[in-house]
Amino acid sequence: MFEFDVIARSGDARAGVFHTPHGDLLTPVFAPVGTQATVKALTPTHLTELGASLVLANTYHLYLRPGDDLVKEFGGVHEFMRWPGPMLTDSGGFQVFSLSDTRKIDSDGVTFKSHLDGALHRFTPERSMEIQNNLGADIIMAFDECPPPLDRAYNEIALARTHAWAERCRNYHRRDSQALFGIVQGGIFADLRERSARFLMGLDFPGYAIGGLAVGETKAQMHAALEVVNDALPPDKPRYLMGVGTPEDLVNGVMRGVDVFDCVLPTRLARNAAAFTRRGRLNMKNTQYARDHRPVEEGCACYCCANFTRGYIRHLIVAREILASTLLSMHNVHVLLTIMREMRAAIVEGTFERYAQTFLSEWKGTQINSI
Amino acid sequence: MFEFDVIARSGDARAGVFHTPHGDLLTPVFAPVGTQATVKALTPTHLTELGASLVLANTYHLYLRPGDDLVKEFGGVHEFMRWPGPMLTDSGGFQVFSLSDTRKIDSDGVTFKSHLDGALHRFTPERSMEIQNNLGADIIMAFDECPPPLDRAYNEIALARTHAWAERCRNYHRRDSQALFGIVQGGIFADLRERSARFLMGLDFPGYAIGGLAVGETKAQMHAALEVVNDALPPDKPRYLMGVGTPEDLVNGVMRGVDVFDCVLPTRLARNAAAFTRRGRLNMKNTQYARDHRPVEEGCACYCCANFTRGYIRHLIVAREILASTLLSMHNVHVLLTIMREMRAAIVEGTFERYAQTFLSEWKGTQINSI
Repeated sequence: MFEFDVIARSGDARAGVFHTPHGDLLTPVFAPVGTQATVKALTPTHLTELGASLVLANTYHLYLRPGDDLVKEFGGVHEFMRWPGPMLTDSGGFQVFSLSDTRKIDSDGVTFKSHLDGALHRFTPERSMEIQNNLGADIIMAFDECPPPLDRAYNEIALARTHAWAERCRNYHRRDSQALFGIVQGGIFADLRERSARFLMGLDFPGYAIGGLAVGETKAQMHAALEVVNDALPPDKPRYLMGVGTPEDLVNGVMRGVDVFDCVLPTRLARNAAAFTRRGRLNMKNTQYARDHRPVEEGCACYCCANFTRGYIRHLIVAREILASTLLSMHNVHVLLTIMREMRAAIVEGTFERYAQTFLSEWKGTQINSI
Repeated sequence: MFEFDVIARSGDARAGVFHTPHGDLLTPVFAPVGTQATVKALTPTHLTELGASLVLANTYHLYLRPGDDLVKEFGGVHEFMRWPGPMLTDSGGFQVFSLSDTRKIDSDGVTFKSHLDGALHRFTPERSMEIQNNLGADIIMAFDECPPPLDRAYNEIALARTHAWAERCRNYHRRDSQALFGIVQGGIFADLRERSARFLMGLDFPGYAIGGLAVGETKAQMHAALEVVNDALPPDKPRYLMGVGTPEDLVNGVMRGVDVFDCVLPTRLARNAAAFTRRGRLNMKNTQYARDHRPVEEGCACYCCANFTRGYIRHLIVAREILASTLLSMHNVHVLLTIMREMRAAIVEGTFERYAQTFLSEWKGTQINSI
């Protein structure tokens, strides 16, 4: 279990198979996010039809509500939300630092106030493992501290804690049915990133996550950090870039050796009326789409584009209908999953370099509304 | 087109086939409501999978937003919302009187303020026909006035207008592809209801709606009105009880000769965390369901009940997840459509009387939470 077979390479990009108890993941892979044990506005059947393979759920959210003990009672998060494929949980660390009111960080753990009701809670590495054991995802994460990526002094202090906590997680987690990944931190600082990767390799995790990116640094800084980390990490283990991203981030990540991604962006943008296309992002609420008979993206095979016009989608958005969120979530997830499948095929066929160049030259990162 | 074949009877209950341009309706039939050209929280594919055959859309809402001219440009409401089966639109009358700020009613029509932006609009019988022609549903409704059901004096005045307007609608609407139904009004007053039915029969509509019920009168008063109307209406035309209802209302309606129903209740209740069961209504938000491993309704074959526990549904509700609305809408629509299919089968098999008795004796109209 949890072997990772790299079946093809193209530069630093890899196509692989990661074996999990709930099935094989074909990498590179993008995981839609089911924060509260549901990928917002989509049913599990929708996800299956979209070709999703890996789904992420959030430890912090499920611990607070409905409680990891309750999820365990229902047979774990797979059974609770009825997702038959592989799942991943984060450590709770990122949300503790970004969503909650963090009260006290010490070498042992973090005390924080719930964003739901202000109640005090405490996470330690061992508690994070216990909660993630209760949730029962296939891939789980070591508990880490997530400092702002540009603050060197803070990153040095936080990295020492993250490493000590990674070791405690490694010692506590003894379950063969869940693969524990270490999380490389170190902000934008090449030496810290390299130090982090090498330290965690010493703990011999079945996979490595790259945390603390896409949270304020430039794209160039993110790419540089990825290059350092992926040069340092072992070539025979999967690498997971947390919380990324946009279509261009996915292509840039795969080019730099990343195998696994997750991000709330496709579903969050959908609920805010934005659609990914191959050439950038559309704000579907714009008046110009009111009488537009084309699908959201011409040539797209998703249920939304195969059936509905931009005019109808805009009407649903303006009328605040739930179906707008559902259809745009389908489309956006479809776009990212399709790009991942295309990249995998291109790596296998040896055409990845051209694919990535073409994609990035056609992609417009900012919102566009002329198409 | 628009022939109605009654294929079996059981007392006053009828099983029939109503032929429309978008397919045959097997009656008795319940239409989920797609107010703004979407049945809230469900895709057209969900509706097809649930076995829905007829879908209603609201003239008032679509006239105001996105505009009936725009819907026409997109090929009509079927094509706009991608519902391949038969559709029905109401006349706009009920919403003008219930949702908008009605400014002036005269013999020619009604001036009202939009509930969206306060702008002044005017509906006349001819305008309602024109709008419904633009929307293009298979079954359309004569423009009527909807007075409070218990006010005799108002009902007499309104009835005269409703009849004059029905005649104007009959004269204006000359399209063979849309069946125009007259609407019987008259509140709870037997003589007015009978007068209304007889007057409209004189205009020889292809079907008759029964309006102004389920808006404040008692169940006994509703049943009495139905009995009077259905005794008076021609036996070879479909009868449509507007805006009804609950499972028990459907059974009571079919017992009294109704063929077609529509109601927002299954989807509206779903968005408010309530589930229909055969034995009453459950508030799925209740704490008692947090650790309940059973489906919403034991023995139910819908996607919600085939896959998810009450504990998970309650979690989605408490966490305010869109999926709660989708799954409970599926369940509630499934319950009503299943009851309709069972009633039709029972009428055909000659067991309807027993079916209705058993159903009504087991049904608890009020909210129950003990099961």
